[in-house]
Amino acid sequence: MTLSEHTVKAYDDELKKLDELVVRMGGLAESQMAAAIDAITRGDERLAQRAIVSDDEIDRLEQEVEQAVIRMLALRQPAGQDLRMIVSVLRISSDLERIGDYAANVAKRAIALRAHAPQDPLRSLPRMVRLVQGSLDRVLDAFVKRDSAKALDVWESDREIDEMYTSLFRETLTYMMEDPRNITPCAHLLFIAKNIERIGDHCTNIAELIHYMVTGKRLTGHRPKGDESSYVVVEPDA
Amino acid sequence: MTLSEHTVKAYDDELKKLDELVVRMGGLAESQMAAAIDAITRGDERLAQRAIVSDDEIDRLEQEVEQAVIRMLALRQPAGQDLRMIVSVLRISSDLERIGDYAANVAKRAIALRAHAPQDPLRSLPRMVRLVQGSLDRVLDAFVKRDSAKALDVWESDREIDEMYTSLFRETLTYMMEDPRNITPCAHLLFIAKNIERIGDHCTNIAELIHYMVTGKRLTGHRPKGDESSYVVVEPDA
Repeated sequence: MTLSEHTVKAYDDELKKLDELVVRMGGLAESQMAAAIDAITRGDERLAQRAIVSDDEIDRLEQEVEQAVIRMLALRQPAGQDLRMIVSVLRISSDLERIGDYAANVAKRAIALRAHAPQDPLRSLPRMVRLVQGSLDRVLDAFVKRDSAKALDVWESDREIDEMYTSLFRETLTYMMEDPRNITPCAHLLFIAKNIERIGDHCTNIAELIHYMVTGKRLTGHRPKGDESSYVVVEPDA
Repeated sequence: MTLSEHTVKAYDDELKKLDELVVRMGGLAESQMAAAIDAITRGDERLAQRAIVSDDEIDRLEQEVEQAVIRMLALRQPAGQDLRMIVSVLRISSDLERIGDYAANVAKRAIALRAHAPQDPLRSLPRMVRLVQGSLDRVLDAFVKRDSAKALDVWESDREIDEMYTSLFRETLTYMMEDPRNITPCAHLLFIAKNIERIGDHCTNIAELIHYMVTGKRLTGHRPKGDESSYVVVEPDA
């Protein structure tokens, strides 16, 4: 192997390492989200603690990505598509770190919900969670395969998650109006649903970054937006 | 001027331009937050619309920062402190973009609150907003002056914002329990307060980035954390 071949090989290894770090962060975020939701539906405090603690590992990996990126920028002076990829990975790792934060927050609320949760609004939650888990799974796959069409597909499916969130928001308010004892658990449910919706948004961000990374083009125009919950008004029955 | 002096000058200009973009984003975020809060306290829908629309300009500036960063990385191949600064600016612009999103969301909820807002919990909000505005203002100043001590000061003051948020969360739940007609506006208030608390978190992020940018060292250990709201349980009076 010549010196130059050696350099190319080392550089390729570093690029591959970045990919692996992203995939590991994504895998951790997926299982953290699953644990957080199981903690809520089963009222299992130990699962909740596990989801909270695993957030530290995701944070640590984000730091590792950043250090690797800075090292590569300084030593390899990448250009063109490689540079785009490296900067995108930096951003993707931030999104995954945020997903971890949201999952940890869902898990924290499982503890407040344990004894009090009304069952009906909880029933809509798993469906929303499955949709978001699907998005995260597909967007990680799109990243690994550098598949911009698949990324676009995730981007477009966020509308459904937003609509589900808006309807859950509305439903949860009516439960609060029915019985004041529902108010505390339902307030936490509102934030749990919001956190899950935000995880969906971060999947959308990642999809945009993959599209840019692969094609060099931005997804222009506004996102498909279905979260109208900020405007929702529900009146109690007279 | 020699060719090399010319290059150095162009490079310095580009670095200065990055600073200016961050300051412009920060200034826009500050006035957007002010407009959003005025919209709520005065029930002014036109102010709310203005705060919502100005988010587009912040988003556009974030794109401009990213393009400038990628161009500089490709052409100037910065190293050492410059590289750290350029990567930090990229992250800071993301935080400012998120602050803009949160401010826009606060403004959107002003519209749902217009006719319905209970006055008492609204009274605690401006104090929390002033604290967060202070953080944003000081962290931007710390950025311009490359003042890591000032950044650290912002970092430490986030605890107070979090504590205020937790107490507002608790207070808002009791208003919901008092009268079912309070439930919709108070649900929006919960999210408004949460958005403001999140703006505080992003100021903390920016403070960490400035500290890293200036000193090359990470602020280690967990953040001073006072947001205990995820564990809060409020019971209605028997």
